[in-house]
Amino acid sequence: MRVGDAMSGARVGIVGATGFMGGEVVRLIAGHPSAELSAVCASSKNVGRLLGEIRPSLSGLGSRVLEQADPARLGASCDVVFLALPHGSSAELAAGLLDRGCRVIDLGSDFRLRDPEDYPRYYQRAHPCPELLDRAFYGLPELTGPPPDGCALVANPGCFATAIALGTVPLVPHLESGARLVVNGVTGSTGSGARPRHGVHHSLRMTNFWAYKPLAHQHMGELRQLMRSSHGREAAVDFTAHSAPVARGIHLTITLRRSELNGSALALLSEAYDGASLVCVAEGRVAMGAVVGSMRSTIGVVETEDAAAVFVAIDNLLKGGSGQAVQNMNLLLGLEPLAGLPMAGLWP
Amino acid sequence: MRVGDAMSGARVGIVGATGFMGGEVVRLIAGHPSAELSAVCASSKNVGRLLGEIRPSLSGLGSRVLEQADPARLGASCDVVFLALPHGSSAELAAGLLDRGCRVIDLGSDFRLRDPEDYPRYYQRAHPCPELLDRAFYGLPELTGPPPDGCALVANPGCFATAIALGTVPLVPHLESGARLVVNGVTGSTGSGARPRHGVHHSLRMTNFWAYKPLAHQHMGELRQLMRSSHGREAAVDFTAHSAPVARGIHLTITLRRSELNGSALALLSEAYDGASLVCVAEGRVAMGAVVGSMRSTIGVVETEDAAAVFVAIDNLLKGGSGQAVQNMNLLLGLEPLAGLPMAGLWP
Amino acid sequence: MRVGDAMSGARVGIVGATGFMGGEVVRLIAGHPSAELSAVCASSKNVGRLLGEIRPSLSGLGSRVLEQADPARLGASCDVVFLALPHGSSAELAAGLLDRGCRVIDLGSDFRLRDPEDYPRYYQRAHPCPELLDRAFYGLPELTGPPPDGCALVANPGCFATAIALGTVPLVPHLESGARLVVNGVTGSTGSGARPRHGVHHSLRMTNFWAYKPLAHQHMGELRQLMRSSHGREAAVDFTAHSAPVARGIHLTITLRRSELNGSALALLSEAYDGASLVCVAEGRVAMGAVVGSMRSTIGVVETEDAAAVFVAIDNLLKGGSGQAVQNMNLLLGLEPLAGLPMAGLWP
Amino acid sequence: MRVGDAMSGARVGIVGATGFMGGEVVRLIAGHPSAELSAVCASSKNVGRLLGEIRPSLSGLGSRVLEQADPARLGASCDVVFLALPHGSSAELAAGLLDRGCRVIDLGSDFRLRDPEDYPRYYQRAHPCPELLDRAFYGLPELTGPPPDGCALVANPGCFATAIALGTVPLVPHLESGARLVVNGVTGSTGSGARPRHGVHHSLRMTNFWAYKPLAHQHMGELRQLMRSSHGREAAVDFTAHSAPVARGIHLTITLRRSELNGSALALLSEAYDGASLVCVAEGRVAMGAVVGSMRSTIGVVETEDAAAVFVAIDNLLKGGSGQAVQNMNLLLGLEPLAGLPMAGLWP
Repeated sequence: MRVGDAMSGARVGIVGATGFMGGEVVRLIAGHPSAELSAVCASSKNVGRLLGEIRPSLSGLGSRVLEQADPARLGASCDVVFLALPHGSSAELAAGLLDRGCRVIDLGSDFRLRDPEDYPRYYQRAHPCPELLDRAFYGLPELTGPPPDGCALVANPGCFATAIALGTVPLVPHLESGARLVVNGVTGSTGSGARPRHGVHHSLRMTNFWAYKPLAHQHMGELRQLMRSSHGREAAVDFTAHSAPVARGIHLTITLRRSELNGSALALLSEAYDGASLVCVAEGRVAMGAVVGSMRSTIGVVETEDAAAVFVAIDNLLKGGSGQAVQNMNLLLGLEPLAGLPMAGLWP
Repeated sequence: MRVGDAMSGARVGIVGATGFMGGEVVRLIAGHPSAELSAVCASSKNVGRLLGEIRPSLSGLGSRVLEQADPARLGASCDVVFLALPHGSSAELAAGLLDRGCRVIDLGSDFRLRDPEDYPRYYQRAHPCPELLDRAFYGLPELTGPPPDGCALVANPGCFATAIALGTVPLVPHLESGARLVVNGVTGSTGSGARPRHGVHHSLRMTNFWAYKPLAHQHMGELRQLMRSSHGREAAVDFTAHSAPVARGIHLTITLRRSELNGSALALLSEAYDGASLVCVAEGRVAMGAVVGSMRSTIGVVETEDAAAVFVAIDNLLKGGSGQAVQNMNLLLGLEPLAGLPMAGLWP
Repeated sequence: MRVGDAMSGARVGIVGATGFMGGEVVRLIAGHPSAELSAVCASSKNVGRLLGEIRPSLSGLGSRVLEQADPARLGASCDVVFLALPHGSSAELAAGLLDRGCRVIDLGSDFRLRDPEDYPRYYQRAHPCPELLDRAFYGLPELTGPPPDGCALVANPGCFATAIALGTVPLVPHLESGARLVVNGVTGSTGSGARPRHGVHHSLRMTNFWAYKPLAHQHMGELRQLMRSSHGREAAVDFTAHSAPVARGIHLTITLRRSELNGSALALLSEAYDGASLVCVAEGRVAMGAVVGSMRSTIGVVETEDAAAVFVAIDNLLKGGSGQAVQNMNLLLGLEPLAGLPMAGLWP
Repeated sequence: MRVGDAMSGARVGIVGATGFMGGEVVRLIAGHPSAELSAVCASSKNVGRLLGEIRPSLSGLGSRVLEQADPARLGASCDVVFLALPHGSSAELAAGLLDRGCRVIDLGSDFRLRDPEDYPRYYQRAHPCPELLDRAFYGLPELTGPPPDGCALVANPGCFATAIALGTVPLVPHLESGARLVVNGVTGSTGSGARPRHGVHHSLRMTNFWAYKPLAHQHMGELRQLMRSSHGREAAVDFTAHSAPVARGIHLTITLRRSELNGSALALLSEAYDGASLVCVAEGRVAMGAVVGSMRSTIGVVETEDAAAVFVAIDNLLKGGSGQAVQNMNLLLGLEPLAGLPMAGLWP
């Protein structure tokens, strides 16, 4: 298969298309110059309905009937399938698709941790399909490079993992032993998924702000793994996530002690992303709103005599999710790296 | 000039690029397959600065230096110029650009009213350039069709005028004499422009809702003109605009008496927009959020024995402004009618 | 019992204390100079928990353990009981409380419609306890006056019914036969209750606006009844409710034809509320935010040659719900009419 | 004067009554059982207007005409005057009021720093009235106790200073030398004041989040002073403030290393506030929304083997401003300590 050459482009299937992440993949693929939507799949209760009934913002993309996620049918009609499913739900379907020659990009957490013993530590259950872990490539392109030749399974990073990794991984080799980074992250309500529940009740959220999973977020596992694979060592991170009354966007404030970093955070990060199309480093602060709707990540740095603050902003559904998944697809299939990825935000 | 054939596409200038409307034209043109940004202009105080400093959501589109809006320079470098300026500021510049062979698309109100005596009625001052009014084409494509051959000046409709016209103009010939339509419109804070002022103070707006210009909105002038030019008669409209705590979007509720309409509103509107790409009519209600970020207009109709409610939703900066301006450009230059126009919304 | 004289004040029970309406009654009673909280009751799953665990904004009011709503126990410990329960759930409990000599103020819809045949028309089921309907007093004090002597059961009006009645009932005798009022009402997400569901998902609501129950809201029943009982006739109302991305507040725009009203809406409404403490009528518009957190209703009027717009703002949980319930309690028990009712809003 | 005994209560003047802080003092005093509003003052352009025209949420408190802030007139009519003015504007007026025997509570920053050399370090100008500094009492009651006998001038703490001090000061004696606390604070748009400007433009703020004054906030001066006066030493604090799209509220996340604290943060803070009416310490997290509209501060603590996170929530206009000012008034005048202070929040 030489997808990059095909007139009509890569044939794409999306499983979990009615979720926030899956719907965003639909939106990006519909506007992608070298890909086309072949199948949109959803859970049984929605099979047969139109995608636009459930996600009306997508109804302008044409009438798309939701299908059952059947590996045989998807395998026959798709070159690549995106899985946007809850934790633990991707593994079996991925196996069936790989068997039929599909490439798979998983937006869930099932293939992010290579060591099968890591999975239960962070997700409190046994891995459903440990034999596939060796085949998966954890794809955060600016830090890991593109998937290797022959790769058929990409694990798309978590939203907070992406933002924290962008702001910290280049610093790791320059940290003193015993250093600790304090990371405070803020995200919007889309990060909690489309299912209604207490924490996303509009009345309670719109004037609220709170921490969650303090010092215990499951994305720390993939972050540590990426630090080790990049630099052979980890840095200690004290991470607390917070919920803000926005729908989209992640903002991080990373605070570190100057005495624990050899060099300037600004210089190190600027060098790390020199030439990167999607990551922009500059002195100062960043505005989360400015990257909402865009694939870009902005990194700002402020340094005093004693401390440094590194700020990172991404759209959690784009660079922190569906957009990065499409970026991984582009690299996997040899397409134009930024094809289909919005460079401007929608702000206001 | 045969712009449609050019490899590199139409060369576009934007005056008022730092405003919400102007910035949105920049964003659309940057992603347009048959157009390219030639010049971005702003007021004197910002000339020489980067557009991305003032509108950081656009900084991913490359480094664009803001220029003075000089007719000679714009005339030499641009095939078409968008003017996104306050009321009364477009006329003189438009004249200079037309003299130099540029096409002009004005997003302001200066060229919307053909009768020079109408302008002071709705804008409380004399028209700055009445001799140009005859040359302007009021372009709301679904109702007016495309600009005529040889047209060089398009007056882009107002945001509320667009929404109200879409929901009412097809009904006009079927209304009883003496009928009155009650229109309640709701818009977001971008409708007030980028300049900070009391009505857009976040603290006061985020938990507020209020009417403005009740029964006296200036867009009624262009609406009446369009009703007359379309059907040779007007319908009385009692319109009250409202401010809601959203950034983008317009939602209308149009209430009419069944006894004053001959026929079904649903049937009449469905027929009027049969085949339209950007307007979708269906029984029921509409969600404003579903068209935010998109060029689409959704129209819903609910009818009882006594009354009918017609709902219209658009994005005030897209179908209600910059997007419609680009749609007009496409038609003016013979490009693909929907080129560069987003069909899916960003919701959430 | 002579509650008004008691040192310690009226002993109050609240059933449904964990809901938005019930919680607001708790807050008001806790700050009431002549009443004290005797019992807070909730559904079985929450019995035994602290109210502050579920509604943390109330935890500063002391440790209050949630009880089962037992008529015997409530009857023994309370002079008055507020019922803040879903439609259809109040009737049986009310009967048990009345039998034990409690006064009952019902915030639900069970006792609002006097004619048992009305209930199924608006609520699609048979009334659970029609024999109590005769004993209930529909209490919207500015229009109905206080409960009559000996009254033990007050039906608290619906939120939209309160606002619409305030803005329209005084006009009814002055409307031409065949007149129709168009009412567009806007409310916040608290109007949908505390249970998480699709329409109050923060991601989808915060940038959205939509109509619901167009031309078919169940509050029209009590409005018609109140018009009839006040003036012996009804006026036709074409009412559409809308959901806005705020938590609290109702804003109405009532549009009418001058030719259908004898007199000035401003003059008629001003006269109707002359001397009223909680309703303020003035020329112009109203800001919903300014009454949020307050018991006040502001009414604004704008009149042109052809039409009039009447604006009404209330806090849906205060004048539109719990606050009016406490106002009814004050009148029922002969307390100071405005005791415990906030006159200033919390804006911002 | 023995204010506490007076029938009619303390006579209160408020200067800067049209601002967010000043307006909140008006609201609290209007509902205070032992105080009454004697004068509301504003800047020249608003003198003679009604307060309710500018702050319509206060119009239910009666018609109050805004006056010029004249020391002689205020001195004659008021027992205590609150100053809610921009930095640098309080000093001269305070001097005039003190001369006339008024008690003064300043909500600005002019009297917070005792050492005249500190002021220019944090506020970039010379102090306008250094001779008064010795007379001022910095009043954060839970940490400083009440104003001493004879005190006539209270400096009310800054909003972030209040929150950070509550969460950190009790820990200071137990920190290792060289310890650093990382504090990330989040506040709403009311913290920026009522004047419209870019950072509070609704369109840009409602979907945004950003840091400001990173590692360089002016409230650090008063915090250090309070640490020194409380414990004879300071702790290093790396504080970054952030702007969130809410109107009210402050949320802090304080991260510290277990190796740098002797003891448990939970135990130390619980002990420090044992018996405090307005500060509640518990294991776990806190919700900012739950204290909005209330005087309470909630503190939550989560500790792991390596780190601890301390969370603090207050309403920036109440415990972080006007409410604490009224608390200081109560203590200054010997009134009931919590009189007039709301214990329940308005959430939703």
